[in-house]
Order: sequence, then C-alpha cells, then structure tokens
Amino acid sequence: MAAKLIKGAEVAAQIREELKKEVEELKAKHNLVPGLVTILVGQDPGSISYVTAKQKTSHELGFYSIQDNQEPDITEAALLALLDKYNKDPKIHGILVQLPLPKHIDSNKVLYGINPDKDVDAFHPVNVGRILIGNYAFLPCTPAGCQELIYRAYGDPKGKEVVVVGRSNIVGKPMVAIMLQKRVGANATVTCVHTGTPKDKMIEHCRRADILIVAAGVPNYIQADWVKEGVCVIDVGVNRIGMTESGKAKLAGDVDFAAVSEKASFITPVPGGVGPMTITMLMKNTVMAAKMAAGLVKL
Amino acid sequence: MAAKLIKGAEVAAQIREELKKEVEELKAKHNLVPGLVTILVGQDPGSISYVTAKQKTSHELGFYSIQDNQEPDITEAALLALLDKYNKDPKIHGILVQLPLPKHIDSNKVLYGINPDKDVDAFHPVNVGRILIGNYAFLPCTPAGCQELIYRAYGDPKGKEVVVVGRSNIVGKPMVAIMLQKRVGANATVTCVHTGTPKDKMIEHCRRADILIVAAGVPNYIQADWVKEGVCVIDVGVNRIGMTESGKAKLAGDVDFAAVSEKASFITPVPGGVGPMTITMLMKNTVMAAKMAAGLVKL
Repeated sequence: MAAKLIKGAEVAAQIREELKKEVEELKAKHNLVPGLVTILVGQDPGSISYVTAKQKTSHELGFYSIQDNQEPDITEAALLALLDKYNKDPKIHGILVQLPLPKHIDSNKVLYGINPDKDVDAFHPVNVGRILIGNYAFLPCTPAGCQELIYRAYGDPKGKEVVVVGRSNIVGKPMVAIMLQKRVGANATVTCVHTGTPKDKMIEHCRRADILIVAAGVPNYIQADWVKEGVCVIDVGVNRIGMTESGKAKLAGDVDFAAVSEKASFITPVPGGVGPMTITMLMKNTVMAAKMAAGLVKL
Repeated sequence: MAAKLIKGAEVAAQIREELKKEVEELKAKHNLVPGLVTILVGQDPGSISYVTAKQKTSHELGFYSIQDNQEPDITEAALLALLDKYNKDPKIHGILVQLPLPKHIDSNKVLYGINPDKDVDAFHPVNVGRILIGNYAFLPCTPAGCQELIYRAYGDPKGKEVVVVGRSNIVGKPMVAIMLQKRVGANATVTCVHTGTPKDKMIEHCRRADILIVAAGVPNYIQADWVKEGVCVIDVGVNRIGMTESGKAKLAGDVDFAAVSEKASFITPVPGGVGPMTITMLMKNTVMAAKMAAGLVKL
C-alpha cells in the first residue's frame, strides 16, 4: 500500500492530551471548569452508547459533566424548558441533545432552542451562519474532525484543490464553508460536487483534487481511476454492507479503499478514520464555549 | 459582439411587475400590506440617494413604507431601541438600516439587532445559516439578483459548472451557498476561487465555467483567454476607474467586457447589469417577509 493511513484514534488522542493541559490551565489561571450536559431522551441502545462515550471523555478531560436522562414520553415543551434551564446555568457551557428524538418532538425546534453559544454540535442556524461568515468559535464535529486530520497529517490545505463530494448539512456544506475561509487550516480552492453533478464531471473533479473529502453515503463509490497520484483522501462514509461472522455490522466507506490507497498519499480507513475524531471535537468545542463564556475568546 | 447583454434594469422591471400583482393579491385575498422601514442615520448624500430609491420603489409597489431619519449622533443604544420598536411592529415586515453607520456605532451589533424574520438584507447570521442549510425565505440582495439574472437569461443552472470568483460575505460566499442547493435556480456544481487560489489554477477554473460569477473587486480582472466560448458571465464588480469629462465617476466591472463579450453567450454590462437588480430583490424579500409573518410561507 502506497498511502499513509490517517488514524483518527491517534490524532484524537493527541488532541485530547492538548485539551487536558488546556483544561488544567483554565482551572489554575481562571478558575474555569468547562461544563457539558448530554441530554438523552429514551433508552435507544445506540444513543446510550454514544452519550456514555461522551460522558466518559468529558470526565477524563476534567470537565464538569452531567448526564441528564429523560423519559421517552417527555413533552416538547418540557424538553424546551429543560434546555432553558441549562441555557441559563453558568456552570454549563455546552449542551448536547442526543439524536434521534422521539417522533412526537420536533428535532429542529429543540436544536434551535439551545443557546447558540452553548450549541457545541454547531447545528443552530446562528452557528452555521457564523461559519460561512468566517467568524466562529466552533464547528460541527464531523467536518471539524476532517479539517484536523487534513491539517495534522497532510498539512495546511492553503492554495490546494479541495473537492467535497456531497452536500449534506452535517458534512458537505459546512465542509465547503470551512475550507474556503481565509484562515489557517483552510484557504483552499473548494469545489462541491453532489447528486446534481453529471457523472463525467464528478469524475473530472475528483481527479483534480489534491484533497478529496467524501461524504456521499454510497459504499465504495470513489474508484481508483477517479483520483490522482498523491491525493489525500478523507472518507466520511459509514455504510453497513452486511454482517461479520460474529454478528457485528460490516462497515465500508464511500471510497474503494484497497484500490484508492494504492494511489493516495494519505487516506483515512473506515472504520478508524474520521469516526474516532467526533467526540474529541465535541470536547474541543466545549472548551471553546467555556472560554467564550468567560470572555477569554471573543467573536 | 457575440454575447447577449443581460440588462438588469429590464429584468428588474419584469420582477417588479410580478411583485406588484402579488402585492395586489395579498391585499385583496389576505388584507396583507407588506411594510418596509428604511432607517437612515446622518445625511451622507450617497446613503440618502439609496434610501430614497428604496422608498420610491416600495411606494410604487403599494407597500406600507416608512423613511426613518435619525441624527448622526444617535447612540447605539437608542438605535437598538428603535430597531426593537420596529421588530415588534406588526405592520413592518422588513427593516433596512442603511450602511455605512457612524463610527461610534458597531454596525454588526445593529444588524444583528434586527429580528431575523425582518432582516430583508439577509446579513444576520441566522439568515446566513438558513441559506447554507437550504431552508430560507430570502437571500442577500446582490447574490439573489445574480441568481435571477442567470435563471431568467441563461436558464436553470442545474448540473452546470458554476465558478464564483471572490469570497466576500456580501457576494461570493452566499453565492456559493445559494448555487449548490438542491433547488430550482441552483443545483449546480460550484467552485469558489479567491485570493488564496494560485493564478494558474484561477485561470483553469474560470476556463471550465459554464457560468462565471465575478466579485473580485479588481477592474478588468477576467481576460478573454480565461473564459470558454459560450460562457455566461455575471460581473458583480463596480470599480471607479476615473472621472468622465462631465465629472461623473467612470465605472468598470471585474471583467474585460469588450474582449470577453466576444466569447460569452451572455454577459452583464457594468453599469446596468447586476446593479439595477438589488433594490428589486429587497422588495421581493419584503413581500416574502410579509408572507412569512402572515403564515402564508413557512420555513
């Protein structure tokens, strides 16, 4: 294999070390303890495992951390009232509502009920707007993780050709907004291709890319003859393509890993690439939110 | 000259005719009269002429319309209080604060003090976020004007190669966000080139463009050998390059018009292209804001 593997868990561990030191400094110098509440509605096993992992990491980093469990029949009004309590709580700097929510609750209404300065998932329109404007404190966790992987493995994308495959609100569109800013870790020429792009153009664009970020949701979509030698490939796809013999989900990315990794200079594996970064980016956002609340960072 | 001229004044007049009919219908069917307040601080001659033109157009369209003049020494707090009055006024659907504001006032604080649902300039982060998310009621006037010119002259940009030159918050970045949405008048493959793009790549991208939208702020920047035959060129540049003999400002766009128009299929002149569209788009936004307030349009 020609490409160097970008191992998300290793980069994430490095960032958590940096955050741990920063949290110690914030405590020592400013008596500031980042506070995170994760709100879980119901008992979905997947959701429980996600919030448990988030709580575990926030404890390890020395945060003030609350796991708030709510019954699945909580009303939308009661959930909004709960958010309001945390919006006003000066010890809480980050509020995360674990998705999905039960069907009787309007998820957007709930997400938009979080104080934008505590919206560490960065899904609130105010935060999306701040990102496009280029004056932001934190970024949605998945594209932020992609940016860190690129910057720390491949180097500064400044002046490079970045091609983003996909235009979801969770990955593709914020990724475009992030990479075209005049900031360190960005300042790239950015092209976004998507389901509206004709196939021949899709392939042409992928072939031009110095950095190819793929969030298409189609297993093994990107072929080896679609990429140029030396490309840096960030594969955001997580597709279930069957079961392993032991009954676990078998995962594939959006990139034909075996073939593409022969041509790429850097590539993220699936699993083990982008995935392990997201919780760490949530922690980074919470530290940033705490610093904003304390006036140590200003927008 | 090969290219057809896209005459902004003509397209704008057509849209105003459509709006006039819509306003009459809203009055007749829903007893709804779109209301716009334009707030002018001080007596800058340029600003006076802009707000006068906005007021004239809104009267012509049958709006409820207020011109609110404030002394140049108004405090920021008093201006915010004034906004709050209009934010709460059910007869007012659109609030426009004419820029620039005096130096003792923080423009962003004022713009962000407008209720986003009445922010017909669409500069508030909530509206910028809504645009990138793709769930919006109105768009900033200049890129919205560009989109209308493309759609009505060239046709639907769906699946076309759009290249945006420039990444300002007023034109380039919202233009990118608009054109990549899965919506009528958009759904294009979008590339954004800017000051961080190496010159050779800049030229390569411009040469690929089916639709080239230029907001670089550099007179005659785009050369004829940078474009392909048949390109549709939208020139957002308004550069003062001297004086005419009668003492008026001599204007040039960002595109070498004489040479590029020999190759393009459509091109906007400067002046007379994008410029005449902006006030009309502000009116369109005000009608949309009124419909939102009345529950006739929902986000």
